[in-house]
Amino acid sequence: MSDVPPINIYSMTVPVLLNGIKNLTHILDKAEAYAAEKKIDPSVVIEARLALDMHPLRRQIQSVSDTAKGAVARLSGTENPSMPDTETTFAELKERLQKTVDFIKSVDPALFEGAETRDVVLKTPAREINFTGYSYVIGFVLPNLFFHITTAYAILRHNGVDLGKADYLRGG
Amino acid sequence: MSDVPPINIYSMTVPVLLNGIKNLTHILDKAEAYAAEKKIDPSVVIEARLALDMHPLRRQIQSVSDTAKGAVARLSGTENPSMPDTETTFAELKERLQKTVDFIKSVDPALFEGAETRDVVLKTPAREINFTGYSYVIGFVLPNLFFHITTAYAILRHNGVDLGKADYLRGG
Repeated sequence: MSDVPPINIYSMTVPVLLNGIKNLTHILDKAEAYAAEKKIDPSVVIEARLALDMHPLRRQIQSVSDTAKGAVARLSGTENPSMPDTETTFAELKERLQKTVDFIKSVDPALFEGAETRDVVLKTPAREINFTGYSYVIGFVLPNLFFHITTAYAILRHNGVDLGKADYLRGG
Repeated sequence: MSDVPPINIYSMTVPVLLNGIKNLTHILDKAEAYAAEKKIDPSVVIEARLALDMHPLRRQIQSVSDTAKGAVARLSGTENPSMPDTETTFAELKERLQKTVDFIKSVDPALFEGAETRDVVLKTPAREINFTGYSYVIGFVLPNLFFHITTAYAILRHNGVDLGKADYLRGG
């Protein structure tokens, strides 16, 4: 990350998504190795939660993917590729993240031009939220991306996986 | 957040910091109310952790403040105001966040001009990390800010405080 690109809606968003997914993949690698070393059924790790009414690790990973690919699709006007939440193994979760990265990298940065003022409508189960491209990135995409990466980290850390801040904050 | 500012190092950073601190303050208000309602000594909440070798809630709040004021000081070339980590009550922690906001708002946005290419050296106990202003924001400031806000949320949520995603993702 030593070359500084022009600051625009692309450079304030896409490198953050890619770096977050890269670090999350590294964290998953460590969780998988921990389960193997301790002879823990991987599904115990993948289904671990911080509270009974919070989502398990699996869903945190899927939510990172959804946040990242949704951001790129909406900002660039590209179709959002469907990725059903069917993953149940570390290999499948990492493949989901890789497919997300492949999609992000397939989109021409030029398509993001002017996206900061574009209308973005986010449909949640509860309601529709109206954003501009800019308010969508700073008010939803970035906080939501890191929410799910950090929650994945917290689930693993709380359960004893040997992780440290440096695993979360690795450079690009 | 309906008006879209020009996209630059200021607009990609400062509104994110302010919105994050605002939502964290709201989350702390709910934690304080929960402790009062359940007649729990507030210090039990403030010292709660997700793992014995992770920092307690108190320190998560202080780290959000440090990340935010450090970012504004380094990017704008302003002196970073010292805020010793002496807070032990909800009132003091919320005052710390308010002082952080006051500092952020006191800095002239014009001072951020061109900060994306400025050298930023971050001294950690372990080492010095060299960034540009841009790589500092995307590789450290934003992930670190949300790491500590989300960890504060996770500590409280894990311990039964009635919080939901909407408390974390409130608009600006």
